[in-house]
Amino acid sequence: MPDAPMELKQLSRTRLYTGRIIDLYVDEVEYPSGTKTVREVAHHPGGAAVVPLTDDGRVILVDQLRYPISRHILELPAGKLAPGEDPVHCAARELEEETGWIAGSLTKLCAFHTSPGFCDEVLHIFRGGNLRLSPGGHKREEGEFTMSLRIVPLQEVLKMIDRGDITDAKTIIGLLLVARGEHLGERV
Amino acid sequence: MPDAPMELKQLSRTRLYTGRIIDLYVDEVEYPSGTKTVREVAHHPGGAAVVPLTDDGRVILVDQLRYPISRHILELPAGKLAPGEDPVHCAARELEEETGWIAGSLTKLCAFHTSPGFCDEVLHIFRGGNLRLSPGGHKREEGEFTMSLRIVPLQEVLKMIDRGDITDAKTIIGLLLVARGEHLGERV
Repeated sequence: MPDAPMELKQLSRTRLYTGRIIDLYVDEVEYPSGTKTVREVAHHPGGAAVVPLTDDGRVILVDQLRYPISRHILELPAGKLAPGEDPVHCAARELEEETGWIAGSLTKLCAFHTSPGFCDEVLHIFRGGNLRLSPGGHKREEGEFTMSLRIVPLQEVLKMIDRGDITDAKTIIGLLLVARGEHLGERV
Repeated sequence: MPDAPMELKQLSRTRLYTGRIIDLYVDEVEYPSGTKTVREVAHHPGGAAVVPLTDDGRVILVDQLRYPISRHILELPAGKLAPGEDPVHCAARELEEETGWIAGSLTKLCAFHTSPGFCDEVLHIFRGGNLRLSPGGHKREEGEFTMSLRIVPLQEVLKMIDRGDITDAKTIIGLLLVARGEHLGERV
């Protein structure tokens, strides 16, 4: 986690929780005026996601239960970075583990902050092409028992975004960037 | 915060922290197999953001220090929902408070989950048009002392996304949706 920026003076940092996905820190900070306040920081290891595109223009998506929102939603295959892991390796690993597909090419689309007001999470998104099925199939963990695949034409997925049927940040960003690349003349 | 979904049996819920932006809950849960594990949930009140578009096709953005990532980044004007607040009211309020501009029209673009693996945050994004300056100017809070405005042509902001110079989820989503609407023939 980066140091506190110079414009806010960090007076103290307390780690309140060490968790499965996030650690929670609460810092006492001081404004230039001398006013003291607190800043809470959820430290997240970051992650990687893939927009897996088949040769005939379909996208492989994962339907899964998201416990914090008590709903099943449709997302790009994705997962957390292991310590020191290169995001492209994480993307390849999570694609195979969650879907049973392997990408022959992974091209970086972007890296973004999910919610920088309280969390340092950075997600890296790749476009995956030249897909083939893994001989071993998927390797989902027990916690991923609610997961199933949906393979949907890109143009249909974009309409799902327009209708509000896709609500996950990384999934909207990855799909809109692929659509923008297509519009700008890149080969999908 | 919604109840735990049926596929995971919630055995207990403990509130570990009550904060400025988030509250942190840790639940003990049970898989259908009987395996017990924990789920951490950062409860966020949700928020609203505006893509404020001038009549000559420029976007009003906010440059601000984001403490968790120790960086200044460029974002849409946005803020947290007050309890029970309609997202469109929140969007109008935050636009005026942070930028000193008032939108004559606010049109819903989408609602999305920032990071549904650990957090229930939902952000609502609106396109703001018919902009005029507020007679009173901006009304930033002391914690917003690092904020300044950037007014940038939409086409230039889209290139900043392509170059990786804009990294905030809501900002990327709002701008790409406005660009997609333009591409699909909607009036910006």
